Amino acid sequence: MDFRLNEEQELFVAGIKDYMSSRNWESYFAECDEKHKYPIEWVKGLAELGVDTMLLDEEHGGMGANMVTLTAIWEELGRLGGPTYVLYQLPGFGTILRHGTKEQIDKVFAYRGSGEQMFNSAITEPSAGSDVGSLKSTYERRNGKIYLNGQKCFITSSLHCPYLIVMAKDASSQTPVYSEFFIDVKNVKGEIKITPLDKLGLRMDSCCEITFNEVQLEEKDFFGKEGKGFERVKEEFDAERFLVAVTNYATAYCAFEDACKYANLRVQFKEAIGRTQLIQEKIAFMAMKLNAMKNMVYECAWKMDNNIANSGDSAMCKYFCANEAFYVVDTAIQILGGIGVTGHRTSRFWRDLRIDRLSGGSDEMQILTLGRAILKQYR
Amino acid sequence: MDFRLNEEQELFVAGIKDYMSSRNWESYFAECDEKHKYPIEWVKGLAELGVDTMLLDEEHGGMGANMVTLTAIWEELGRLGGPTYVLYQLPGFGTILRHGTKEQIDKVFAYRGSGEQMFNSAITEPSAGSDVGSLKSTYERRNGKIYLNGQKCFITSSLHCPYLIVMAKDASSQTPVYSEFFIDVKNVKGEIKITPLDKLGLRMDSCCEITFNEVQLEEKDFFGKEGKGFERVKEEFDAERFLVAVTNYATAYCAFEDACKYANLRVQFKEAIGRTQLIQEKIAFMAMKLNAMKNMVYECAWKMDNNIANSGDSAMCKYFCANEAFYVVDTAIQILGGIGVTGHRTSRFWRDLRIDRLSGGSDEMQILTLGRAILKQYR
Amino acid sequence: MDFRLNEEQELFVAGIKDYMSSRNWESYFAECDEKHKYPIEWVKGLAELGVDTMLLDEEHGGMGANMVTLTAIWEELGRLGGPTYVLYQLPGFGTILRHGTKEQIDKVFAYRGSGEQMFNSAITEPSAGSDVGSLKSTYERRNGKIYLNGQKCFITSSLHCPYLIVMAKDASSQTPVYSEFFIDVKNVKGEIKITPLDKLGLRMDSCCEITFNEVQLEEKDFFGKEGKGFERVKEEFDAERFLVAVTNYATAYCAFEDACKYANLRVQFKEAIGRTQLIQEKIAFMAMKLNAMKNMVYECAWKMDNNIANSGDSAMCKYFCANEAFYVVDTAIQILGGIGVTGHRTSRFWRDLRIDRLSGGSDEMQILTLGRAILKQYR
Amino acid sequence: MDFRLNEEQELFVAGIKDYMSSRNWESYFAECDEKHKYPIEWVKGLAELGVDTMLLDEEHGGMGANMVTLTAIWEELGRLGGPTYVLYQLPGFGTILRHGTKEQIDKVFAYRGSGEQMFNSAITEPSAGSDVGSLKSTYERRNGKIYLNGQKCFITSSLHCPYLIVMAKDASSQTPVYSEFFIDVKNVKGEIKITPLDKLGLRMDSCCEITFNEVQLEEKDFFGKEGKGFERVKEEFDAERFLVAVTNYATAYCAFEDACKYANLRVQFKEAIGRTQLIQEKIAFMAMKLNAMKNMVYECAWKMDNNIANSGDSAMCKYFCANEAFYVVDTAIQILGGIGVTGHRTSRFWRDLRIDRLSGGSDEMQILTLGRAILKQYR
Repeated sequence: MDFRLNEEQELFVAGIKDYMSSRNWESYFAECDEKHKYPIEWVKGLAELGVDTMLLDEEHGGMGANMVTLTAIWEELGRLGGPTYVLYQLPGFGTILRHGTKEQIDKVFAYRGSGEQMFNSAITEPSAGSDVGSLKSTYERRNGKIYLNGQKCFITSSLHCPYLIVMAKDASSQTPVYSEFFIDVKNVKGEIKITPLDKLGLRMDSCCEITFNEVQLEEKDFFGKEGKGFERVKEEFDAERFLVAVTNYATAYCAFEDACKYANLRVQFKEAIGRTQLIQEKIAFMAMKLNAMKNMVYECAWKMDNNIANSGDSAMCKYFCANEAFYVVDTAIQILGGIGVTGHRTSRFWRDLRIDRLSGGSDEMQILTLGRAILKQYR
Repeated sequence: MDFRLNEEQELFVAGIKDYMSSRNWESYFAECDEKHKYPIEWVKGLAELGVDTMLLDEEHGGMGANMVTLTAIWEELGRLGGPTYVLYQLPGFGTILRHGTKEQIDKVFAYRGSGEQMFNSAITEPSAGSDVGSLKSTYERRNGKIYLNGQKCFITSSLHCPYLIVMAKDASSQTPVYSEFFIDVKNVKGEIKITPLDKLGLRMDSCCEITFNEVQLEEKDFFGKEGKGFERVKEEFDAERFLVAVTNYATAYCAFEDACKYANLRVQFKEAIGRTQLIQEKIAFMAMKLNAMKNMVYECAWKMDNNIANSGDSAMCKYFCANEAFYVVDTAIQILGGIGVTGHRTSRFWRDLRIDRLSGGSDEMQILTLGRAILKQYR
Repeated sequence: MDFRLNEEQELFVAGIKDYMSSRNWESYFAECDEKHKYPIEWVKGLAELGVDTMLLDEEHGGMGANMVTLTAIWEELGRLGGPTYVLYQLPGFGTILRHGTKEQIDKVFAYRGSGEQMFNSAITEPSAGSDVGSLKSTYERRNGKIYLNGQKCFITSSLHCPYLIVMAKDASSQTPVYSEFFIDVKNVKGEIKITPLDKLGLRMDSCCEITFNEVQLEEKDFFGKEGKGFERVKEEFDAERFLVAVTNYATAYCAFEDACKYANLRVQFKEAIGRTQLIQEKIAFMAMKLNAMKNMVYECAWKMDNNIANSGDSAMCKYFCANEAFYVVDTAIQILGGIGVTGHRTSRFWRDLRIDRLSGGSDEMQILTLGRAILKQYR
Repeated sequence: MDFRLNEEQELFVAGIKDYMSSRNWESYFAECDEKHKYPIEWVKGLAELGVDTMLLDEEHGGMGANMVTLTAIWEELGRLGGPTYVLYQLPGFGTILRHGTKEQIDKVFAYRGSGEQMFNSAITEPSAGSDVGSLKSTYERRNGKIYLNGQKCFITSSLHCPYLIVMAKDASSQTPVYSEFFIDVKNVKGEIKITPLDKLGLRMDSCCEITFNEVQLEEKDFFGKEGKGFERVKEEFDAERFLVAVTNYATAYCAFEDACKYANLRVQFKEAIGRTQLIQEKIAFMAMKLNAMKNMVYECAWKMDNNIANSGDSAMCKYFCANEAFYVVDTAIQILGGIGVTGHRTSRFWRDLRIDRLSGGSDEMQILTLGRAILKQYR
């Protein structure tokens, strides 16, 4: 067993640390959050360091980094206050490579190094949340074209992405056939209406309702094979959930360190509050939860790198980290007191984390996925 | 034993219910919250129903209502979505009557029936949170006047109140002498600078930093007896904490009912989510916590009405309700899913409740107050 | 509203207090627990005070006491260390009166005032726990007799009761017909084998496996109407669950007071441990849970007395009190330290309480019952 | 990073698995527990496999195994139901080697391979629990001899160990001087009275009160240097706490697997209970806690092996594992239902785990140790 990063990983982390201290990013993040703005300046800088394509093979211009390395990078970014949740497109390049056509790949790869959001997936609908199978959006072939109609909701990043991958059902089929389309939002024919939602947290990324009205597509616009839409997205769920978990953990780490430093400095009743038992207890509980999160995400990353992870592993990470990180951040606010709720970054983290118990698969879905995965091993 | 309201109380509650359904208040509340606006229209209507002075004797124009009645009214207001936290000045008329001079009473009583904010108390300072005794603001007699200097923070309602009651230390005394002053903010000589803070929740009320620079007062401006500031505010703490608790409980009640209705309507996997065990479990846990909060606050109110309440009782109510209400509202959001975090009132409640574990005496102070009160009984 | 007992109730409670201090009952309880002995001396004394029949009308020799009074009595008994769980036969006299034949009533009523266990109900089977409907015991009419066969398990009090009320299925019916029989264990023909189980807690009462082999009964031995077995027992479930809850609460009260007294006396690091924040916090948490339990059981009792209680109420009481009482007792042990786990009564309570999350309807059944009862109100 | 055992470790674990399946150990353990008997047959077998001395260097007849290997062995033993808590003397050989005289070493090493208990440390006294510094036992030099007097309590393993290492204060010194003595219990002059306590759990090991009355010792009987008693025992605390944690974790693992298997087999309402959401949720929670415990203890072992562990690490392990393991075992009982509390090994584990939140340093001491260790890093 070995709980250390290797030297190369340590160096990469050190570079990230330098980048994070190169500027007062916090005021930028606070502003982006308030104005619902994507932090392009921060992401561009990361892209320049190669973070956006680090998972790609060298032949595709990447570093061939593994998931443990990714985890270490995100841990450091988040620990220093960075909103890694806007980096979910990072694994997007791989998705496109695996499933896209040459044309689709070229379009998306044009964004390498730019830090800009390039595409996201639109699956959820008003009547299809956890129950993805109930989606009602349809596509229909007419006159050599394909027409897409329907309504999506809670679609992350969708306000500014040039491309969307949209799941719909074949209107002509009796048995359900789910397929995905790669849509060039600005240039496609037909009506696409995107309405931003006012989200409690994760406000540096957009979250929209989208309606498709007679959106006109071609056969070449399928993303992946027709009828394989579900298989495709299920394949991604585990990675997505894992990344949410790492973000949650790293955010908690940041709040924890803010709280520890404050507890040592803040004096009440003539001593640092960190000298009182109730604060020491809070710090101890936070530390245990951080330890558990850290090891859980690194172990899962290591399993992914060794091809032995399953859906139970990422479900565990997502549920555990979303909830334990929330506990840590909430406790950090309690230690920070009044300043914790009047403009401090911890209250942003706190709002952000609330979303993650719902999006990317609700807590309840993670619990059932994990419980069933475990019980299967004991049959 | 009797767990029922009496007929008169039931009638009053019914009147409140009518008032709450007289208009779509929720959109008004949402707007006030977003714009940091005091919901004067709502409070004015309540004042017209006599709610603002219900605790006063009839000779002072009130109803002579007891705390159980107040609890029932606030429960109904909160249950139907009303921000009872802005009604904290309600007990203020009594405070002024008990401690104010005739001039002070007249000034404040001019606001009866108006629904407007008339005064609040300013105690907390950057270095004096839980540790009130560390406050640094001073007053000093010079040339027949009294000069007030210092800095207060996290002062609720202070942006629009015409009057402030400010605690300060006698600068000339070796041993600490704490006194309070009744200040006419707009008309007093000297500089008062009020800076609003961007608070995570409770945004229909203001929360400001205030600096006093050579504010010139007279002997008649003392509020209560010189040197008795601490005794005066301690006397109010219990009532204040109790009112926070009732607000928290009633807010949770509202979120709970929203969640129950939604669980019965929302269909996923072809059945109402309320038919699944994980949702039933959530509902059960919420119901238990509501039951415990309800009985706790009514019992405390009844004890107050019978003069057998102590500081332990209100500390218990405040800690318990702030935390359990938070749990209930957080769970309601989980049941509501995506809509719960994109504009629904539960996410406002959720932000509001976070503040109440810090303000009006932090959780930690309640725990220690309660623990010590109990242990004293077993010595 | 009124949170007080009336004068008569206060007097009754005072009598109970006297009885409890009439002898060092604890050493007797400890011995009974160790030897799996029913505490007949203690119960006989209570019966002499009229506690065994207090719920009966005066015409049946009772006091016509209501559930609030019962709750007050059990609260005091438990608070002073008494194992009220052995008093579950207390409501038994009422059960017999409501459903029994004259013969059955006479047999059971012969035990009034004796304190002895007279009968219990046998429903659970190896394959029928929460799922009562899966029971396999059968009865069959042959040659003018009725023959009972089957196996019961986890049957409380069954080692020494002279009578058992046993649920079985009509072997001759296609559709399930569940009926109950009143069995004179010692004198009935056929084989009844009773095997005591080694239970973790509640050891002053027995818990047995029972097999019935060709037990020969008559038509007069039905208990209640044939085919109405389920309705009959369901009717009792609520009361049973409520009594478990009161027992749990009162047990916790006892442990709480033991812990408070000890925290004030025990000195470590030169001060009473009750002066440290971690202990004060524990005391505060225990106090809140006790307050919530107390009000919950009294409110439920009051609702029962006013015929407005439903299954949700008793399910709530049972789940909440079993779990919160366990928390309180567990915390009391933590405060007591080493002495808490080497012979102190709190460790007996702790073992006892573990059983109550399983028996009389598992936690899970209470949660689902409560959740569903609530959701029904919001349809 | 690497989360795998190496090949050698895997082989050792496989040997352990074989040993555990070589006999129905559970019935033996149950009997030992009931009769307060040390499971010598089981430990002897382990000693024959070299487990008792595995940590020793080869020159002292050991395997030179590291803590990761030890963790893996204990994990497997505990997972298969073995009471590793009786193996606390395993690190004892190292203790003797480090601090003992040749004579003391020879005496203790005579027990290698026997599986018998050879010595334990006696520190705790009635007035000195968490506050070790308050101990009152004394030693005094008189006529060329040293006389030991005092009372110890909660002394684990002390009923059958031939040797005791006892901490006492120099009666002649004004400033406190704490020293330890190596005592040959059976052969020493003076009176040693050992009274076993009836402990709630961990009953395969003894727990006694011991009084020393004029026990006559020599200068050669000091254990370690005079006056260095505290330093010596503090050095051991971390290892001891770590071993408790590993035991707790491994015990929970066993209960977890019992519960998983049962959930798949037990049918109620016509389906395996493992198919219901409430059970899946329980399994999911247990699995998360096991994951966190596993990684925490392995990481701590690895840190010990790399000399980078501190007191915070073992305090974290002890608190976290004792509490989370308790949760897991308690939940396992809930899944097992009635059988879980009538003779099943999980109810033994459940009693055992209760002790470990008190002994070897109470939960409260771990929390404070950990909290302070963390805060120190942020000063």
